[in-house]
Amino acid sequence: MSTFLAEFLGTMMLILLGDGVVAGVALNKSKAQNGGWIVVTVAWACAVAIPAFIFGAASGAHFNPALTIALAAIGKFSWSLVPSYIAAQFLGAIVGGALVWLSYLPHWAETEDKAAKLGVFCTAPAIRNTGANLITEIVGTFVLVFGILGLGQVKMADGIGTLAVGLLILVIGLSLGAPTGYAINPARDLGPRIAHAILPIAGKGDSDWGYSWIPVVGPIIGGLIGAGLFTMVF
Amino acid sequence: MSTFLAEFLGTMMLILLGDGVVAGVALNKSKAQNGGWIVVTVAWACAVAIPAFIFGAASGAHFNPALTIALAAIGKFSWSLVPSYIAAQFLGAIVGGALVWLSYLPHWAETEDKAAKLGVFCTAPAIRNTGANLITEIVGTFVLVFGILGLGQVKMADGIGTLAVGLLILVIGLSLGAPTGYAINPARDLGPRIAHAILPIAGKGDSDWGYSWIPVVGPIIGGLIGAGLFTMVF
Amino acid sequence: MSTFLAEFLGTMMLILLGDGVVAGVALNKSKAQNGGWIVVTVAWACAVAIPAFIFGAASGAHFNPALTIALAAIGKFSWSLVPSYIAAQFLGAIVGGALVWLSYLPHWAETEDKAAKLGVFCTAPAIRNTGANLITEIVGTFVLVFGILGLGQVKMADGIGTLAVGLLILVIGLSLGAPTGYAINPARDLGPRIAHAILPIAGKGDSDWGYSWIPVVGPIIGGLIGAGLFTMVF
Amino acid sequence: MSTFLAEFLGTMMLILLGDGVVAGVALNKSKAQNGGWIVVTVAWACAVAIPAFIFGAASGAHFNPALTIALAAIGKFSWSLVPSYIAAQFLGAIVGGALVWLSYLPHWAETEDKAAKLGVFCTAPAIRNTGANLITEIVGTFVLVFGILGLGQVKMADGIGTLAVGLLILVIGLSLGAPTGYAINPARDLGPRIAHAILPIAGKGDSDWGYSWIPVVGPIIGGLIGAGLFTMVF
Repeated sequence: MSTFLAEFLGTMMLILLGDGVVAGVALNKSKAQNGGWIVVTVAWACAVAIPAFIFGAASGAHFNPALTIALAAIGKFSWSLVPSYIAAQFLGAIVGGALVWLSYLPHWAETEDKAAKLGVFCTAPAIRNTGANLITEIVGTFVLVFGILGLGQVKMADGIGTLAVGLLILVIGLSLGAPTGYAINPARDLGPRIAHAILPIAGKGDSDWGYSWIPVVGPIIGGLIGAGLFTMVF
Repeated sequence: MSTFLAEFLGTMMLILLGDGVVAGVALNKSKAQNGGWIVVTVAWACAVAIPAFIFGAASGAHFNPALTIALAAIGKFSWSLVPSYIAAQFLGAIVGGALVWLSYLPHWAETEDKAAKLGVFCTAPAIRNTGANLITEIVGTFVLVFGILGLGQVKMADGIGTLAVGLLILVIGLSLGAPTGYAINPARDLGPRIAHAILPIAGKGDSDWGYSWIPVVGPIIGGLIGAGLFTMVF
Repeated sequence: MSTFLAEFLGTMMLILLGDGVVAGVALNKSKAQNGGWIVVTVAWACAVAIPAFIFGAASGAHFNPALTIALAAIGKFSWSLVPSYIAAQFLGAIVGGALVWLSYLPHWAETEDKAAKLGVFCTAPAIRNTGANLITEIVGTFVLVFGILGLGQVKMADGIGTLAVGLLILVIGLSLGAPTGYAINPARDLGPRIAHAILPIAGKGDSDWGYSWIPVVGPIIGGLIGAGLFTMVF
Repeated sequence: MSTFLAEFLGTMMLILLGDGVVAGVALNKSKAQNGGWIVVTVAWACAVAIPAFIFGAASGAHFNPALTIALAAIGKFSWSLVPSYIAAQFLGAIVGGALVWLSYLPHWAETEDKAAKLGVFCTAPAIRNTGANLITEIVGTFVLVFGILGLGQVKMADGIGTLAVGLLILVIGLSLGAPTGYAINPARDLGPRIAHAILPIAGKGDSDWGYSWIPVVGPIIGGLIGAGLFTMVF
């Protein structure tokens, strides 16, 4: 399998399973409605870990431009591969968003709240504040990239490392996800936001483009800081 | 142990533990009533993983006709064994449903809601829509079968792979289970539906046969797509 | 360490951590009050798994007379050790119950509900029905003992087997625990019930001795059936 | 990496992720508000396990003066290193608390409840009672230190031991954390309490210094008892 295909399919699966849980807790008449923060965060953790297992050998399972860029910046990934990785990630995220729309097809018309419908696809801050929202995304992605690199240098039996990455995603969500919805990944946010803009979602509102740069820029900065700290201390 | 006995006992255990949790959250006076989506999905994940550990060596731990058929379709399982596997799965599912009825014996009469009682045994859509319900079951089983095959080719320490399959079931439930209740397995749905029809459940209603073909046909289609994609990309 | 000490300390830890969570969700002014079924069941799963890790090499980590008797009945454990194991388990369970009382010391007086206070120590059925309650405890312990023996014959990396036993406890609680509170262990129920009778718990009621034989007899029967089935099929 | 840097960064990460979840469930307008006890306890378990993985090889991943002192007391750690370990732990905890403040920056002004804001940083008892609160912290830290030492002597595949420590933290929180909020670690409580006193948190109240010695003294006593029992029985 090409690295492009692995990143495409892995990110598609990530978004199908990650955005899927938000649809489950947010859309009307869903059996998971109001399932709570534990439902959202456990699902996102598995949504990363499962494709990370499946596609890890093929591409390294980045699924995240902020990670790809951070790894390149510290010489652990070739800059020449960065464009195709990021393209695959965005394409996968858009298709994943479309699959979520399909999987919950009759629920869109049953849901009045336009913000909730957008929230299935991409993040929105609990309190809108450019500086603070950037900081939260930076801190979250700092922990993500530092954590992935830190876990990567630990001796573990085959498979445990990927479970540990799943726990890392879980705790970032539980502990740092509440102010902005933890994009911590430009493709995870902008990809499905584009899907939201394109798809004929029943009764949808606008795609909140004004906020869209924060979950792109914040994660890239946070990832660079995390990778930088890792190279300094390890 | 014969493969028939392994598939029979494994599917029996799957349904006892899986349908058991729905009884726990749905029936009146149960200590788990309104336990929430996390309770349901975590239990179903373990309900698959525990018998998968126990019977994996004996039969491969399918417990699911959609998986059995998909594996046969891509040449990873003998067509000649398919009928006995499916028979064992359905018998196990029916007996498992009966054990759930027994385990919650005094709770049926305490529960007015006939749909809730049926819902312990088999799935029902949140919004009844043939096309959409089929799509949801297809997408869910696509992820299931692609995921099982994908995880199967990863090098993991003994036992981790089965834990990973449990996480796969967990996230399918959390993220894609809310519109239809995620049958993703014809035996899991039709077997206990037959048990519901046969058993003298206090105050039961009809068995909703009109919907019953969707959680059979959808999973078979989804499984074939998942297995097909797997063979194309791996 | 002697097997007596291992079973004593292990069962003490099991009850401290297991009954502790019930105190947390049931007693007034507790920070975990109304934490829900997931809190109770996850804690009991860990309450078994942690001492099972720690004392497994010393005694086999039974912590449960129904398991001890079932293993002896199928020739996997010496009958001559059964009395000392069971004595250690009951003593440990009583001391564990006392430690829970101490850990939640000011909360007993703040809690009016006498049944809730008793429920911290031992189980009570959701619907009182001798036959049905026995069946539920039999089915639960059947799954427990069959599951432990079944998991024990699976090849897993060191430590995974104990994690799998934890998941087995988790799913028994989630799926079969709601009608009777899943004693599935005579020492787990009768030991702390004795502690409840002895300790000067503020505003306590009676210890419901009329029910106390069911979580003793049911688990013993269920364990024997589980062990018997295991020897027949494996 | 020096042991000082490892303990500093590890404890910083512990507090960022641990106190972060309390901010998430306690502060107004947070997406995790009222997420429940399972959210809090799972996050703290991961908040220990993730840095324990990352920094375990460098420093042994104490992150807790009560553990450091207990290990020294039984000869498993050099007394000469104790001061620098404890200094690193407190510094890390203070910086971790500051990062939580930053990550939730706009939420402080939106939250009226001064006790809730203090509760993000450090623990407070559900019922204020010096003796009982001390006992609860002693029992919790006894289980922590005995458990860590007990798990440490078990043969497990690489990485499983750290997962088991995470489950130990989880169950201590679920089962013994409800009366006092389970500090079980002097640095975890006093460090962020100092951060609370120093930082310009919008609308903060006092730092409850009257209680602050209990989560320092209780854990040290409990840790010594746990380590003492371990050396006696193993």
